[in-house]
Amino acid sequence: MGKRVFTNCRATTMVAGGDAYGLVEDAAIVVDDGRIDWVGSAPMIPPQYSDYPRTDLGGALVTPALIDCHTHLVFGGDRSREFALRLEGASYEEIAKAGGGIRSTVSATREASDEELLADALRRIDDLIADGVAVIEIKSGYGLTIEHEMRMLRVARAIETHRPVHIVTSWLAAHALPPEFDGEPDRYVDEVVLPGLEMAAAEGLVDAVDGFCEGIGFTPAQIRRVFEKAQELGVRVKLHAEQLSDLKGAVLAAEYDALSADHLEWLAPEDAAVLAEKAVVAVLLPGAFYALRETRLPPLEALREHGVAMALATDCNPGSSQLSSLRLAMNMGCTLFRMTAEEALAGATRNGAKALGLEAEYGTIESGKRADLAVWDVSHPDYLSYWIGGRLLRGRITAGTYHDA
Amino acid sequence: MGKRVFTNCRATTMVAGGDAYGLVEDAAIVVDDGRIDWVGSAPMIPPQYSDYPRTDLGGALVTPALIDCHTHLVFGGDRSREFALRLEGASYEEIAKAGGGIRSTVSATREASDEELLADALRRIDDLIADGVAVIEIKSGYGLTIEHEMRMLRVARAIETHRPVHIVTSWLAAHALPPEFDGEPDRYVDEVVLPGLEMAAAEGLVDAVDGFCEGIGFTPAQIRRVFEKAQELGVRVKLHAEQLSDLKGAVLAAEYDALSADHLEWLAPEDAAVLAEKAVVAVLLPGAFYALRETRLPPLEALREHGVAMALATDCNPGSSQLSSLRLAMNMGCTLFRMTAEEALAGATRNGAKALGLEAEYGTIESGKRADLAVWDVSHPDYLSYWIGGRLLRGRITAGTYHDA
Ligand SMILES: [Zn+2]
Ligand SMILES: [Zn+2]
Repeated sequence: MGKRVFTNCRATTMVAGGDAYGLVEDAAIVVDDGRIDWVGSAPMIPPQYSDYPRTDLGGALVTPALIDCHTHLVFGGDRSREFALRLEGASYEEIAKAGGGIRSTVSATREASDEELLADALRRIDDLIADGVAVIEIKSGYGLTIEHEMRMLRVARAIETHRPVHIVTSWLAAHALPPEFDGEPDRYVDEVVLPGLEMAAAEGLVDAVDGFCEGIGFTPAQIRRVFEKAQELGVRVKLHAEQLSDLKGAVLAAEYDALSADHLEWLAPEDAAVLAEKAVVAVLLPGAFYALRETRLPPLEALREHGVAMALATDCNPGSSQLSSLRLAMNMGCTLFRMTAEEALAGATRNGAKALGLEAEYGTIESGKRADLAVWDVSHPDYLSYWIGGRLLRGRITAGTYHDA
Repeated sequence: MGKRVFTNCRATTMVAGGDAYGLVEDAAIVVDDGRIDWVGSAPMIPPQYSDYPRTDLGGALVTPALIDCHTHLVFGGDRSREFALRLEGASYEEIAKAGGGIRSTVSATREASDEELLADALRRIDDLIADGVAVIEIKSGYGLTIEHEMRMLRVARAIETHRPVHIVTSWLAAHALPPEFDGEPDRYVDEVVLPGLEMAAAEGLVDAVDGFCEGIGFTPAQIRRVFEKAQELGVRVKLHAEQLSDLKGAVLAAEYDALSADHLEWLAPEDAAVLAEKAVVAVLLPGAFYALRETRLPPLEALREHGVAMALATDCNPGSSQLSSLRLAMNMGCTLFRMTAEEALAGATRNGAKALGLEAEYGTIESGKRADLAVWDVSHPDYLSYWIGGRLLRGRITAGTYHDA
């Protein structure tokens, strides 16, 4: 069942340690029951696969399906008016009056029906799928009540029944303070973040716990309490850290064996060693850097020196990274952060999987992994980070089955 | 013949002087024989159109078809390896050895067959069409012999027989110096640029004449000779000016009543007055600014103060703006250059048309203009510049006929 050999392709395996990109020219990829059984040079294909049906990929480039490991793509409303007002020179007061800022997204999310939230999210999901993405992390964080946070994650989970993607959820109630808790962040943590996490975890809605550790978010002490609860529940953590200042959030995350620390523009170079030691993935989000016109670059050299795995994601959200193209995030990783083209693709495949704790299942073309692949109309993987815009995807292989893009 | 009323839409007419974006809520757009006959509030539709067939656009936002008024999208090869090598820290020598730089595009363009050039261009054309673009300017400049420059423009013209777009061509032989003229730019102007222009114009291949006025391009004196020839032939001019330094190229262009001066990051604010006086359009190219990581911004305030029309384009080319999304260029115009969202859309419609001398035909939804429109799945035109990536286009109206995107 589901046995097939894909031939006449260039396999960008992303297996580290060998040729650049783990590239195999004139490759054959054998799939069986939704998994990769064998990949290698076509002339070397073992005889036991000789009677498998074959699909000729016409010389296309094949990569692992892409992974967007940091998004906020379930939300209500949009912030286009606020975007336009800012450019027209409106003051913060005027923008607040016109309903700007994250609180406007919170209101719109609370007001939207489940069906509306899902329909809006599916548009962004379809954009990502068109870019070859098959694994998508989605955070709560715009509900900010127990019920609305749980509802966001239920909508996120529901996406899997509508589209051929694997969804990974994060509990991000510690994203912003809702107006009803103004000036009382600790009470918000006590009454919403912690008990909500327990309830959401009990319902199976929480793959990981996230927080926004920042002057305009939550303090390290508050985040620590959230992480303690996560640890108690046996849920892995991750953190928005060092985006706008250095609060040592990444070090805190490492202390709790976090999957990832995300943003990191203000990470002190010496703290890269801590991430390396605890195998915390550095998730870089150049879309937010671009949209916010930031100028401080994450310490790439230090991350490289210490061998920290670097992932790359869209950070898709309505306020600070209104971006639904992972390939564009890859180009921004190169153009703005000076990642290499290979690092950018690793960031959207192998290291994206690692950032989600899914490295046994996704992120490389290797025997045993899921046969979820992207088939591209390009001759070399460099091109995926190089070209900006447009559609380069020819097709998708989902659980071993080919579909035209 | 071809009579129809489009109803239930929001018409973003882009007619200046009234409401923002010239927006008409609950609009009707009457087309007849490929032209717009009437546009306005649906309840006000004149009785003579009452028997026209109707198409309900389901509340969609309608804008003029977008216009990409500055591209180099006919070229051979790609520069993805060079892009990757630069990021890996390769020296200029190593890149040159690996075949980098504009000369690699010149070689690849000369080597490519007409069919290959066309097929490659059509991919980029299709990307633009998916973004709602219907008018595209394409320059020569990678052939750099009379025959290859003419061939590029023949390929550009041929696009019209394959896709529903209007192509406008520019003779840009004064783009770079080919290796066979090393150190002899004046001889190149004499032997290729000027006689080639005459031949190409005679063959009907030249809608305008362009040049690259820059330290690494051609001097103002050389450009002046090209413009003299254009004037003699009765062909309008335009110029790549003030991209990397201030050689007063824009002032030179204005002296020859240029359609546009393009790039302009280094334009002296006081020279905006000269552009205004001669109604030269300022074509801003934020994709090149982004890709080259430039930091000097074009003098927006001065351009606004003097009332210079600002257009916006992709500059689609393989080396310095490998970009095939005009909507992304609009977002970059806002994010990087601080254009307003309305200026960005005007730049891709009304002022794009002006930059091509096509303002009587394209660029606004007005009686008498061509019924080439873009139909969007968004609620407000702000959204077009706000959201980055993804597909927002629902359909296209081409010569009065609706097609799903
Ligand atoms: Zn985030
Ligand atoms: Zn150009």
